[in-house]
Amino acid sequence: MMRQKIVLFGDSLTEQSIRENGWGVPLANAYSRRADVLVRGYGGYNTRWALFLLHHLFPLDSTKPPVATTIFFGANDAALTGRTSERQHVPVQEYKENLRKTVLHLKDCSPIMEIVLITPPPLCEEGRQAYAISLYGENASKLPERTNEVTGQYANACVEIAKEMGVWYINLWSKMQETDGWQKKFLSDGLHLTAEGNTVVYEEVIKVFNEAGLSPDKMPFDFPHHSKIDYKHPERAFQQNICDIQL
Amino acid sequence: MMRQKIVLFGDSLTEQSIRENGWGVPLANAYSRRADVLVRGYGGYNTRWALFLLHHLFPLDSTKPPVATTIFFGANDAALTGRTSERQHVPVQEYKENLRKTVLHLKDCSPIMEIVLITPPPLCEEGRQAYAISLYGENASKLPERTNEVTGQYANACVEIAKEMGVWYINLWSKMQETDGWQKKFLSDGLHLTAEGNTVVYEEVIKVFNEAGLSPDKMPFDFPHHSKIDYKHPERAFQQNICDIQL
Repeated sequence: MMRQKIVLFGDSLTEQSIRENGWGVPLANAYSRRADVLVRGYGGYNTRWALFLLHHLFPLDSTKPPVATTIFFGANDAALTGRTSERQHVPVQEYKENLRKTVLHLKDCSPIMEIVLITPPPLCEEGRQAYAISLYGENASKLPERTNEVTGQYANACVEIAKEMGVWYINLWSKMQETDGWQKKFLSDGLHLTAEGNTVVYEEVIKVFNEAGLSPDKMPFDFPHHSKIDYKHPERAFQQNICDIQL
Repeated sequence: MMRQKIVLFGDSLTEQSIRENGWGVPLANAYSRRADVLVRGYGGYNTRWALFLLHHLFPLDSTKPPVATTIFFGANDAALTGRTSERQHVPVQEYKENLRKTVLHLKDCSPIMEIVLITPPPLCEEGRQAYAISLYGENASKLPERTNEVTGQYANACVEIAKEMGVWYINLWSKMQETDGWQKKFLSDGLHLTAEGNTVVYEEVIKVFNEAGLSPDKMPFDFPHHSKIDYKHPERAFQQNICDIQL
């Protein structure tokens, strides 16, 4: 039994998923001995730059494409023009087109891959401002470099693409705002996730994976549980159900 | 630039490394965007059973063998005969021979792989007894199924093999006992690791990896940091230094 792969593709919100309290940790643990959760998170990246990675991360001739991939971009695309993070800005129409290209590429890579689009989380302008002041003091720009309203446009665009292309989606922007105090409860600097914010992402992702038939308890272990090994004849436990397990 | 692989091979002490507070989490984070840390931990396994996995996990014809592998067995091998965990027992001479075979296989797999043998941690008999009572109450066996003294023999054997074969080792059994109160500070049930125990393992492993020239900051990112991307000509950042990146 070859161990499956689940890929988390995105920006810093994905790169940081493997940190302490990150959403990738409980996910990797849930699929322990069943699937490898591979983090492909690139801090600061927008969808325009992510396109350059597609053929490298998801080669079309792969013999073992991922069984599922999350695509979690938009927080950087939504940076405003004329402000301090302008270089990361991608117009919302191009963002949609880039997501469409990304989904198409993954479908080309594997027609049975479960694809999950995740919208950017909501944005707290006060939190961003406080963070800028913590870095630059009085030199911090007074003008927001991102707004929740604009980020919401990207979230809507992401959901539209998911519906258009028939893939899974998580509207994190809406979901998080259902909770009072989301600004500080879920966001550490107005943009990145607190431990509780990471928990929301984990719970939403595992819910979608369960719906998609990728519930961990439905996936086989790569090797027998130790209780299944006859200690007088251990070889018997390893003679069956092993095909081509490779790293 | 192909992303490197670091494999953690072992029993439950490795399987649990990807849990919250597990030693694999800070390790994976340290190598973020540089190497994948792949957990190959099999709870309850001893070295005898682990031998059945070698050719599957580390195929000799692999074109991308791990750059480093930790081998962390012995806690189960050291279970006592005639006690409740007897089925997991492996005589210490066979344990040595199994470790030797494992190291030889990995060297065959890749002559440049950094191999790190980790001894079992010390064992707290009182902690094991309390754990047995929590599970079985009055029916819990009064006789210890593992002792620290016997586990120490396996730790010594592990170190001997490492020296004999010229590979790295971490004498966790000795290291942890240098700290007063190791019994509860580092062990949750007399055998498995607390958060602080996991921290010890992480710190010892990253220390060895640094000594072995695998310091994360000496390994290249798989793709450019976003600050290196010319936003007017992003393609330029992706034209260089990219060979064959595959998952």
